[in-house]
Amino acid sequence: MQKLPMVQKKENGLTTYIPVGDTVIGRDFAVIAGPCSVESEEQIMETAVKVKDAGANILRGGAYKPRSSPYSFQGLGKTGLQYLRRAGQAVGLPVITEVLDTRDVYAVAEYADILQIGSRNMQNFSLLMEAGRSGKPVLLKRGMSSTIEEWLGSAEYIMKEGNPNVILCERGIRSVETYTRNTFDVSAIAALRELTHLPVIADPSHATGRAGLVPSMSLSAIMSGCDGLMIEVHPSPRDALSDANQQLTPAEFAALMSDVRKTLKLRERLRNEHGEDSFIARAETAGQ
Amino acid sequence: MQKLPMVQKKENGLTTYIPVGDTVIGRDFAVIAGPCSVESEEQIMETAVKVKDAGANILRGGAYKPRSSPYSFQGLGKTGLQYLRRAGQAVGLPVITEVLDTRDVYAVAEYADILQIGSRNMQNFSLLMEAGRSGKPVLLKRGMSSTIEEWLGSAEYIMKEGNPNVILCERGIRSVETYTRNTFDVSAIAALRELTHLPVIADPSHATGRAGLVPSMSLSAIMSGCDGLMIEVHPSPRDALSDANQQLTPAEFAALMSDVRKTLKLRERLRNEHGEDSFIARAETAGQ
Amino acid sequence: MQKLPMVQKKENGLTTYIPVGDTVIGRDFAVIAGPCSVESEEQIMETAVKVKDAGANILRGGAYKPRSSPYSFQGLGKTGLQYLRRAGQAVGLPVITEVLDTRDVYAVAEYADILQIGSRNMQNFSLLMEAGRSGKPVLLKRGMSSTIEEWLGSAEYIMKEGNPNVILCERGIRSVETYTRNTFDVSAIAALRELTHLPVIADPSHATGRAGLVPSMSLSAIMSGCDGLMIEVHPSPRDALSDANQQLTPAEFAALMSDVRKTLKLRERLRNEHGEDSFIARAETAGQ
Amino acid sequence: MQKLPMVQKKENGLTTYIPVGDTVIGRDFAVIAGPCSVESEEQIMETAVKVKDAGANILRGGAYKPRSSPYSFQGLGKTGLQYLRRAGQAVGLPVITEVLDTRDVYAVAEYADILQIGSRNMQNFSLLMEAGRSGKPVLLKRGMSSTIEEWLGSAEYIMKEGNPNVILCERGIRSVETYTRNTFDVSAIAALRELTHLPVIADPSHATGRAGLVPSMSLSAIMSGCDGLMIEVHPSPRDALSDANQQLTPAEFAALMSDVRKTLKLRERLRNEHGEDSFIARAETAGQ
Repeated sequence: MQKLPMVQKKENGLTTYIPVGDTVIGRDFAVIAGPCSVESEEQIMETAVKVKDAGANILRGGAYKPRSSPYSFQGLGKTGLQYLRRAGQAVGLPVITEVLDTRDVYAVAEYADILQIGSRNMQNFSLLMEAGRSGKPVLLKRGMSSTIEEWLGSAEYIMKEGNPNVILCERGIRSVETYTRNTFDVSAIAALRELTHLPVIADPSHATGRAGLVPSMSLSAIMSGCDGLMIEVHPSPRDALSDANQQLTPAEFAALMSDVRKTLKLRERLRNEHGEDSFIARAETAGQ
Repeated sequence: MQKLPMVQKKENGLTTYIPVGDTVIGRDFAVIAGPCSVESEEQIMETAVKVKDAGANILRGGAYKPRSSPYSFQGLGKTGLQYLRRAGQAVGLPVITEVLDTRDVYAVAEYADILQIGSRNMQNFSLLMEAGRSGKPVLLKRGMSSTIEEWLGSAEYIMKEGNPNVILCERGIRSVETYTRNTFDVSAIAALRELTHLPVIADPSHATGRAGLVPSMSLSAIMSGCDGLMIEVHPSPRDALSDANQQLTPAEFAALMSDVRKTLKLRERLRNEHGEDSFIARAETAGQ
Repeated sequence: MQKLPMVQKKENGLTTYIPVGDTVIGRDFAVIAGPCSVESEEQIMETAVKVKDAGANILRGGAYKPRSSPYSFQGLGKTGLQYLRRAGQAVGLPVITEVLDTRDVYAVAEYADILQIGSRNMQNFSLLMEAGRSGKPVLLKRGMSSTIEEWLGSAEYIMKEGNPNVILCERGIRSVETYTRNTFDVSAIAALRELTHLPVIADPSHATGRAGLVPSMSLSAIMSGCDGLMIEVHPSPRDALSDANQQLTPAEFAALMSDVRKTLKLRERLRNEHGEDSFIARAETAGQ
Repeated sequence: MQKLPMVQKKENGLTTYIPVGDTVIGRDFAVIAGPCSVESEEQIMETAVKVKDAGANILRGGAYKPRSSPYSFQGLGKTGLQYLRRAGQAVGLPVITEVLDTRDVYAVAEYADILQIGSRNMQNFSLLMEAGRSGKPVLLKRGMSSTIEEWLGSAEYIMKEGNPNVILCERGIRSVETYTRNTFDVSAIAALRELTHLPVIADPSHATGRAGLVPSMSLSAIMSGCDGLMIEVHPSPRDALSDANQQLTPAEFAALMSDVRKTLKLRERLRNEHGEDSFIARAETAGQ
C-alpha cells in the first residue's frame, strides 16, 4: 500500500477522537439517524424528535441529493438546510448533511456540524480539499467500487489541508449480487482497524437498500468493530421522495436501538476480557 | 426470482433441521473447524483434539483440494479421508470434507458425515445431482461470483434428487477489493432468511483470507443470523501446505469460541424479546 | 504470474496448430456455428446445411445443457449427440459439444470432434483432467469471473494429462453492466497473445446475449487477434428452447460471414505489412 | 431504462454532429492524441507536431490530474493549459483537457476547445451542470463501475443545461481481471448505437493500461462502431510523470494511424454494402 502518513494507524494504536456536539466520535458510539432527504419542516422535525428519543446522537437529512437522473427529486437545497438545522436545534442534536459542490462548502458548513461527502464524490478531489479547509469534521463515504487504499487516499487529501477530523463511512460496494442494492463490506471495517486511526461508521441502509435487512446488518457491523451507525429513518417510508425501500419507521428504529445498546454492551465486555480493544489485539498477533 | 419450490421459505417460517452426529444443524449452532487440508495423521489428530476441546461440533479437513495450478498441493486423497475419519472417531466428532468428482461421491460418503461442494463446483450440476443421491447431508458453498438466485438454483438440484439435507455456506464473493481475499457478504445470510428454509453457515476464513479478521467476522456473521460457522484451524498455520494466511492457531480458536458463546447468548436473548426469530419477524413487517 | 510451463508462449512466438477435420485451428480462421441446443433432428440438420453454406467450418450444438434451474430445458442428451453427429456428417463438418460430467467424457468423445468445457466447469479439475486424457481437442471457456491466470491454470491441467490440443474461448465476464449479458473482454484475447501459444476463439453470442450486437462484436474480436469465432445460429431464434435473444438467423449469419471474410483479409494485409504477426510484434516492442 | 429524452436515439437514427476546429465529430472520425499530462512546453509541442503529422485531429494533454494519492504528480495547472493551447495553435489542432472543479470550468473553457470530465467525476453533478452551461463541447468519460444507464443519465444532466454537444468516451470498467488496468467494454460502444444519438469515442490507453494492447484494441473499437479514438502519446513514455506503461511513442502512433485508416476504409465499405449504417441496421432487425 502506498504511503499515506496522515491516515495510517498510529504506533499507539489509538483511534482519533472527533468531538461533535456532546458526542465524541471514536470514543462514544455514534448513531446518526434521519431521513434520506429533508422533505418538509414537519417531516424532519417529527423525525428529529423520534430519533432523539430513541437514542440517536446525530441527525441526518439530505438537502442536496445526488441522483442518477436529472428528473429525480433533487432535494430542497438551502431551505432543506434551514429545516434540518432548526430541527437539530429544537431537539439538541448536531446535524450532518451532504455537500455536492465545492462552491457550497462554506454555505453548508454554516448549517451543518459534519459535512458528508457521498460515494459519487469520493474522488472529487477539489471537493475533498475544500471540505478539508472548511474546519468542519468530514464524513467520507466509500466510493461505489473503490478499494480501501483509494478510500484512504481520499481521506489523506482532506487531512493534508489541515483537517484531522475525518470519519470513514462504509456503505456497500457493487458486486454481482442484485437482491441487495450493494454488498455490505463489513470486513473492510475490520480491515480499517489494522490500517488507520480514523473512526469508521457503517451505513446498512444504503449497503442493503432493504429495510428488513437493516437491523441484523446494524448488529453485524457493531461486531465488526465500527464506531457508529448511520441509519435512514422516515415517519412514513412508503411516502418517501427517495430511497423508500430502505428507511425504517421510528418504531422500528427504536426497537433496533434497544438491540444496539445490548450488543454494544457485549462488545465492551469482550474487549475488556481480551485487553484494550480485542479485535485489534488479535489482528496484531494472528495477522500477516 | 424464478420458481424453486423445494428451497423456498416455508409458510411456517421454520428452518430445516439436519441431524449430524449429536448436532442438529438448524437448531443447534454448528461450529465446523479444522485445517484447510489434511496433511498428516498427527496434524489432523492434534487439531481434532483441540477444536473439540474448544467446543467445535464438526471436524473439517480437505483430502481432495481444488487448486488453480496443477503444481500446487492437491491433497492426500483417500489416505487423507482415512486420517480425517479416524481423527473424528477418536474425539467423537462427525466430519465434513470436499468432494470434487462425481465418481468419488460414494467413496467420500463412506468416510464423511457431510459432503462439501466447493465454490468452483457450485454449478457442476452432475456433482450436485450425484451428491443429492448419496443420502448424505450436503454443504453447498456459494460460487465466487454467484448471485443468491443461482445459489438457490443449485440447492434445488440437490433437493430434487430426494435429498432434503442441504446446508448453504457463504464464503465471500469477488469484488474490486484486494486487501481481503474475497468480500464477505453477510447481508446474503440475512437475505437467505427471507428466501429459504435451509440453514446457512458462514466461512470467514475463506471470505477474508486473513486470520486477523476471522474473529470479528465470526461475530458479525452470528448477528447476521447464521446457523453456524466454518473456521480453519491448524496446529501451526505458517507451515500449512495451503491457505497459510487464514488459519487460526488452536489457542486463537479457543479464545474465539468463548466470544462466540457469549454472542450467541445475546442473540438468543434478543430473539426471545422480539418473539420467535426476531430478524425474520422484523423483515416481514419492514421489508418490501 | 505463476509458472505454467505448458501453456506459456514459446520462444519462437508461434501459435499451436490443432487439426480438426479439414481445418487447422491456429492456422485457419475457425468459425464454429450452430444452435445453443440441439432441439430436434430437423433443427440441427437445417442449421448445419445453412451454416456450412455460409462458410462455417465447425458445427456446434448443445446436448447436455448446464442451466441455473433444474426446471429449465436440460438438452436431449445422447439423442442430441446422435443428431449432431449425423448433421455434421451429412454436411461434412466436424462437431463440437459440451461435456458436463467426468463419466460422460468418453461417450461424448465418440460423437464429438472437439469437447467443450463450459464456463461453470472451468475449475472442475476432474473434468479438465478427464478431457485431457480423452485424446480429443478441448475448447475451454473462460469462467464467469475468472482471471486470465486462473484460465491458463485450467488449460495447464488439460495439457498436463498429455493433451496438447487446447483451444481457449473468451465468452465475456461478469461486471456491473446489465444491458449486455456479460462484458466481452476483447483485451483478454490480445493479452493472451502475449502469454500463451494456444489458439483463442471468441464467443460474442454469450458475451453480449443480444443478437443485435453479435455482428459488430465478431468483427471487433477479429481485430483483437482471435483465431476464430463461435456464433449461435438457429433457424428460428424466437422459438429457441434456450438463449432465444442471442441467436442469429441463418440469413443474418450469412451476411455476417461476408463481413468476416473481408475483415480477415484486411487483418492479413496489416500483418503482412508489419512483418510476421504485427499485433504481437508491436506488443513486444511497446509492452512492459 | 428510465426516461432520458435528450440523449435517447432519435427516430431518424442519426448521430449528432459536433464541430470542433475543422473536424465534425460524429461525421468525421476523430483521433484525439497527446500525452497523459502536459509536463513541459517542449514535451507538448513535440508531441503536437508528431501526432498532427501522423493524422490526429485533436490534441490532448492533462493540466489538472486526478490522482488517488495527494502525493502523486498533480499536473501543471494553468501553466499546463497555456502550454497546451500554444501547442495546439502552433500545429493547428483544437485541444481537449480535463476539468476537475466547478470553479475552474470557465477558466479551462478559455483554453480548451473541448472540456473533458473524467471517470471519477462522472456523477459529480455540479460539474456536469457547470460544463453544460459553458457553451463548450463536453467529452464525458464513463465512470469506473458505471452502468450505461447511469452514464446516459449524466449526459442528460449536461444537455439539460442547454448544451447539445456531448461526446461519450468508453475507457474501460473495473472487473476481476488485473492483467489489464480495466476491462475495455467494446460491447458498450455497440450498445450505445442502439440507445443514443451521441457520438462515442474509445480510449484504449486507459482501458488496457498497456501500450502493447493499444493498437489491436484501437482497431477492435473501430469495428464496434466508435466515432473516434483517444490515444495517449508521449515523446518518451518511460520518462512520463503519469501512466508511463500505457503511452505510445510517436512512431508507434504513426504506425497505428496507418492501420486505423485502412480499418476505417473497410468499415465504410461494409456500411455501404449493408445500407446506411449497417451495424445499427442489423441491430434493429435482430435485436430484442
